[in-house]
Amino acid sequence: MTTNIAGLLKSRGVSLQEIAEIVFLLQKTYSPNLTVDLCLEAVEGVLKKREVQYAIMTGIALDVLAEKKLLPGDLQQIVESDEPLYGMDEVLAFGITNMYGTIGITSFGYLDKQKIGVIGKLNANKQNQVNTFLDDIIAGIAAAASARIAHQMARKPAAK
Amino acid sequence: MTTNIAGLLKSRGVSLQEIAEIVFLLQKTYSPNLTVDLCLEAVEGVLKKREVQYAIMTGIALDVLAEKKLLPGDLQQIVESDEPLYGMDEVLAFGITNMYGTIGITSFGYLDKQKIGVIGKLNANKQNQVNTFLDDIIAGIAAAASARIAHQMARKPAAK
Amino acid sequence: MTTNIAGLLKSRGVSLQEIAEIVFLLQKTYSPNLTVDLCLEAVEGVLKKREVQYAIMTGIALDVLAEKKLLPGDLQQIVESDEPLYGMDEVLAFGITNMYGTIGITSFGYLDKQKIGVIGKLNANKQNQVNTFLDDIIAGIAAAASARIAHQMARKPAAK
Amino acid sequence: MTTNIAGLLKSRGVSLQEIAEIVFLLQKTYSPNLTVDLCLEAVEGVLKKREVQYAIMTGIALDVLAEKKLLPGDLQQIVESDEPLYGMDEVLAFGITNMYGTIGITSFGYLDKQKIGVIGKLNANKQNQVNTFLDDIIAGIAAAASARIAHQMARKPAAK
Repeated sequence: MTTNIAGLLKSRGVSLQEIAEIVFLLQKTYSPNLTVDLCLEAVEGVLKKREVQYAIMTGIALDVLAEKKLLPGDLQQIVESDEPLYGMDEVLAFGITNMYGTIGITSFGYLDKQKIGVIGKLNANKQNQVNTFLDDIIAGIAAAASARIAHQMARKPAAK
Repeated sequence: MTTNIAGLLKSRGVSLQEIAEIVFLLQKTYSPNLTVDLCLEAVEGVLKKREVQYAIMTGIALDVLAEKKLLPGDLQQIVESDEPLYGMDEVLAFGITNMYGTIGITSFGYLDKQKIGVIGKLNANKQNQVNTFLDDIIAGIAAAASARIAHQMARKPAAK
Repeated sequence: MTTNIAGLLKSRGVSLQEIAEIVFLLQKTYSPNLTVDLCLEAVEGVLKKREVQYAIMTGIALDVLAEKKLLPGDLQQIVESDEPLYGMDEVLAFGITNMYGTIGITSFGYLDKQKIGVIGKLNANKQNQVNTFLDDIIAGIAAAASARIAHQMARKPAAK
Repeated sequence: MTTNIAGLLKSRGVSLQEIAEIVFLLQKTYSPNLTVDLCLEAVEGVLKKREVQYAIMTGIALDVLAEKKLLPGDLQQIVESDEPLYGMDEVLAFGITNMYGTIGITSFGYLDKQKIGVIGKLNANKQNQVNTFLDDIIAGIAAAASARIAHQMARKPAAK
């Protein structure tokens, strides 16, 4: 597969650096020697997984198709308005986090609720772009990268 | 929401009766008094859940958009060809089963592997229609209805 | 099954009222007419599900066995110390939330991170009692009850 | 952590070689050059993950404690008898598979239903030993190793 995932995220307004900054906020308490550069490496590591790439491609496709008014039936309005009881965005995004085990659940939920960093920016930018899937996907990637770092460091107290 | 889910499934070639027949095959060993009609009631019960409806609408939308060649980038070819390592169809479909707890995992995996009943028909009909998400969704609904029956009967030995 | 789940939770220091209060904090923004009594009803509804009862019984058993130093091998120390990379507590607890679909992921993660209400009390009471599974289980029940309310109300903006 | 996971499995009657043989049966259709030795390497790779080790240790602990009649309340009888509606064994085991993404769901469910190889042997040996968690755990490890091989080969048609 040749899809440039970093380029795809960039085309939707998100840089890997911005995701790395979220990871740094999540993990710095637990890992005193952590740097944003190490977080960026972790994000890049997460994005190498094929299943992660598929989740990102699928979620962004649904956002883009909603923008173009191409989704069939009621789904158009549901995705376009980020209907609160629609959970498929969480389903796809949480699949990313889950690749690094269950300790990422906590970070994922926290990010999704608190809208930290670029996630908040995306959420505020709903006028110009459909970000229904994208904001959850960024939370999923950041939580996965955090779990990856926690497992690698394997020191206490680690991310939980 | 007013989407007619039974009608949507029918438009893709699947009747609730056909799903009920799969449920009957799965559960009859464990529930001697089971009938196809009771299985149909269980299927209808599953389809009343909002989250189930959203999963079905989303999966079928992706199949239909692939048929119309409207998916962006590599995703078009991946969904159109039912790429074996693409797991988003399982993710969406398994979310349906999961609403009835974990005992449905086994049935879901078994159906997905053995392609029983209408699932096999869909799988054989790939020339005329993209069924990448639909076959998993049918397995997800049937496994959910089985788990629903098992929980309701709560007699041993039940579905596991 | 005759296990008294409310009694089991009480024996570990948690009342249903305390869980209902967490649900109220989570949901009141989205549901202006919500009361703690309605939250208590939702909690009781969640606790009626057999799979929820099994998750609670299993998690509390592991806490109690750790207290009695009866867990085999390294597991004793891992559960007793609430080892941060041990994720089985989240796995069991998140299974409770998942019964109400994916919109509960966010609340679950948020509660697990922020340690709201009785969850914080449990976390602070680690000297006298092993609560490795219990605090996650309470978060799982509260997130499930929140999702249950959100689905029932089905008004926007709801819990997400 | 110093727990010898291969030794722990062996103490319950399962060799890594037996798990590798299940993986070989699952994957040989898709990977003509596959050998049992390559499957054994994949199994060993799966067992190196900390979260996998924790799931195995927890599940086997519950089996062993049930054998010793040490589980509290109704849980003793539920685990001892492998109560069909108890799903915590699937929850723990499926967490293993999930580390390699969702394509493993199918294999996991199939193995759990068909009781192939050593899984069937465990299931038949319930008189002498409680294997409620162990048989699901072996299915989880084998499905994870299959998914690992499928992702590594990344050739079509792969395991799904």
